[in-house]
Amino acid sequence: MSSSHDAPSLPSPLPESAVLRAAYRARAAAADLAPLPRSVKDDALLAIADALVVRTKEIVEANARDVARARAAGSSETVIDRLTLTRERVAAIAADVRDVAGLPDPVGEVVRGSTLPNGLDLRQVRVPLGVVGIIYEARPNVTVDAAALCLKSGNAVLLRGSSSAYASNEALVKVLRDAVGGAGLPADAVQLVPGESRESVKELMRARGMVDVLIPRGGASLIRTVVEQSTVPVIETGTGNCHVYVDAQADLPMAVEVLINSKAQRPSVCNSAETLLVHQDIAEAFLPLALAALAEAGVTVHGDERVLALAERTGSKATVVPATMEDWETEYLSYDIAAGVVDSLDAAVHHIRLWSSGHTEAIVTTSQPAARRFTQLVDAAAVVVNASTRFTDGGEFGFGAEIGISTQKLHARGPMGLPELTSTKYIVTGDGHIR
Amino acid sequence: MSSSHDAPSLPSPLPESAVLRAAYRARAAAADLAPLPRSVKDDALLAIADALVVRTKEIVEANARDVARARAAGSSETVIDRLTLTRERVAAIAADVRDVAGLPDPVGEVVRGSTLPNGLDLRQVRVPLGVVGIIYEARPNVTVDAAALCLKSGNAVLLRGSSSAYASNEALVKVLRDAVGGAGLPADAVQLVPGESRESVKELMRARGMVDVLIPRGGASLIRTVVEQSTVPVIETGTGNCHVYVDAQADLPMAVEVLINSKAQRPSVCNSAETLLVHQDIAEAFLPLALAALAEAGVTVHGDERVLALAERTGSKATVVPATMEDWETEYLSYDIAAGVVDSLDAAVHHIRLWSSGHTEAIVTTSQPAARRFTQLVDAAAVVVNASTRFTDGGEFGFGAEIGISTQKLHARGPMGLPELTSTKYIVTGDGHIR
Repeated sequence: MSSSHDAPSLPSPLPESAVLRAAYRARAAAADLAPLPRSVKDDALLAIADALVVRTKEIVEANARDVARARAAGSSETVIDRLTLTRERVAAIAADVRDVAGLPDPVGEVVRGSTLPNGLDLRQVRVPLGVVGIIYEARPNVTVDAAALCLKSGNAVLLRGSSSAYASNEALVKVLRDAVGGAGLPADAVQLVPGESRESVKELMRARGMVDVLIPRGGASLIRTVVEQSTVPVIETGTGNCHVYVDAQADLPMAVEVLINSKAQRPSVCNSAETLLVHQDIAEAFLPLALAALAEAGVTVHGDERVLALAERTGSKATVVPATMEDWETEYLSYDIAAGVVDSLDAAVHHIRLWSSGHTEAIVTTSQPAARRFTQLVDAAAVVVNASTRFTDGGEFGFGAEIGISTQKLHARGPMGLPELTSTKYIVTGDGHIR
Repeated sequence: MSSSHDAPSLPSPLPESAVLRAAYRARAAAADLAPLPRSVKDDALLAIADALVVRTKEIVEANARDVARARAAGSSETVIDRLTLTRERVAAIAADVRDVAGLPDPVGEVVRGSTLPNGLDLRQVRVPLGVVGIIYEARPNVTVDAAALCLKSGNAVLLRGSSSAYASNEALVKVLRDAVGGAGLPADAVQLVPGESRESVKELMRARGMVDVLIPRGGASLIRTVVEQSTVPVIETGTGNCHVYVDAQADLPMAVEVLINSKAQRPSVCNSAETLLVHQDIAEAFLPLALAALAEAGVTVHGDERVLALAERTGSKATVVPATMEDWETEYLSYDIAAGVVDSLDAAVHHIRLWSSGHTEAIVTTSQPAARRFTQLVDAAAVVVNASTRFTDGGEFGFGAEIGISTQKLHARGPMGLPELTSTKYIVTGDGHIR
């Protein structure tokens, strides 16, 4: 091969930025990973699971340093709980990796195929995305989950966790890389983004052409920053301002159960409900039951004028405070719910269109036409009829695992499993066909 | 409904920017379009086709003003040809709209569905993206094509054509809006982005939350600008640095035919070939034939050292100039081709990995293992075996129409038909299911 086009696969000199150097190495690893068959990838995942168990001690010790730092910094118990790794938790993480090994490999799936009128054979097959960047908060389990899902789908992964979990992530990624390398795969397929500074996130967001997609997982402000500043394509995840709408005709005990489960089964997650909307025709019958159940679940109600008036008139024991405009757009993630009475199903749809984050919207109704109209008109990743909003989840949907819940419309919407970590390519085969 | 959450669907006062006002109106129109059944959308498309024919005169007259301006500005004949609308061309555009009406409606297609173990019914169905922005150059036919594809897939469209076609686009959009409105659909589903300044493109690129996707169609610099500056998600289209690789074992006449068709059948389009790579074992036999055929087709060869040496030694009549590094990355779109000899298939793959834009890569070979390895290792929207690169096209692939050819990996890759203009939503139906 002539020297004039035998350029090195890495630029020489390598970029000065440690983040870009990591991305270049990930790119080379991704090219090696892409054609690997399932068995090789699964063996690597099982090696990871084994290594996590064998090397639990060094992981837990590194984690203890992060936890001590967090305590010294006065972090809340919730934050410390999320950050903490124990022997049991590491074992559970390893078990999750084994589960990922058991899932079908999306790579190579023929999405569509046909023989064209001219005799050309056309196949559209799933291929890995390439290099996936994950930006996330102080949950070390995400380090392993994300790496396992990316490896299984043939992708290299760049992990940028919270600096408050840096020691834990460093220890985990060391274990992962050793196991991956030991299984004959390129260790550079799993890398921690070097550096704890915000600068490293910025560099990752500008690594267009080297990183194929960025998936921010975490709070709304992190996601907004990445979405606005990244030139790398982003998949927006996780913000959930979810509504439960109780229609004019509804099974009242079912409506109460769905409401309470949607709000209070686990209020801190994105698929919990944040607003209750009630059709005016059923408000007198339903709201007293709903307010009583919400009170019992410890939920504070931020009610509109009609909810406030009804609560007062019926002597409800619930805590009901006046709703402001802000309440309609707030993702509380707490034992709070906004509540309003609407004139019609269309008014509920209109309210949802204005305020929803497009995650999950539920209707409780016995009317088939109402269910049909609601599912047609409401534009969200998931529209739920007579069930809790809490079901929007990769595990519940039977995907086996999820890398996040997309609230955008491009590429993936809703819970993202392994197929959502892939792209496709067309393979066209002929006998010398020309146009 | 209490005043506290009965907010207007448009912000009051409306945004000052005319572009954002257009986007707000498109958003409202998109909500109306989304649930419409196929028949209503098809009727609107047929009304558009009729109106284009009936009102050809005003369209051609407006176009004549653009053409006169372009001539006065000294535009090339190629540019003027692309810009020009005649009675025949308008009739052809109208026929294309009728063809779009005849295509299946992607909206409502159930992509997957199952009953979960707990009895919940899960369906993933196609829904429109919402508001699609198209940024394109001075080809007025794109105005109608893009509007027809967006309407058929239930999307509102914001059209931002070249300022040099503004009069033509204004006339066309007037006809489209009248026809759409007359068919009972919201006229605001089709809008020309107001203003001819670059500022209007910038505003469109910052309309995140109001515009769901931007599709730039045109030259590389336009696409790069949009990709780098837009906060609205972008689908990158159309840059094609496509390669034809002739393997050690190949049918020589077939290889010549595929090469010439790939390069010279229509050099100005993105799926034409820009580089020829030849395995060293077949170079002596193939290159003299290839150079002769390229010379006959009027193609200038930018050869590496080995190609230059062989051309000289064999007394080739082809125009062969030395290739520089730049030639390997250039999308000529002209009667030029870069050419090099490689040591192996893997060296060809390596070259393609370095320089390809990920559009279309072809191999000519009689070796099954070589074809398999090439299609596995080459990462591009289309990988072609023993056929011309020119087949990567929505029409050729049987999609009926295309909005562009995506060279990115997220959402859509390769020719984009109607399904690529949709997203999905999950519809979950239960009997009061809770977690």
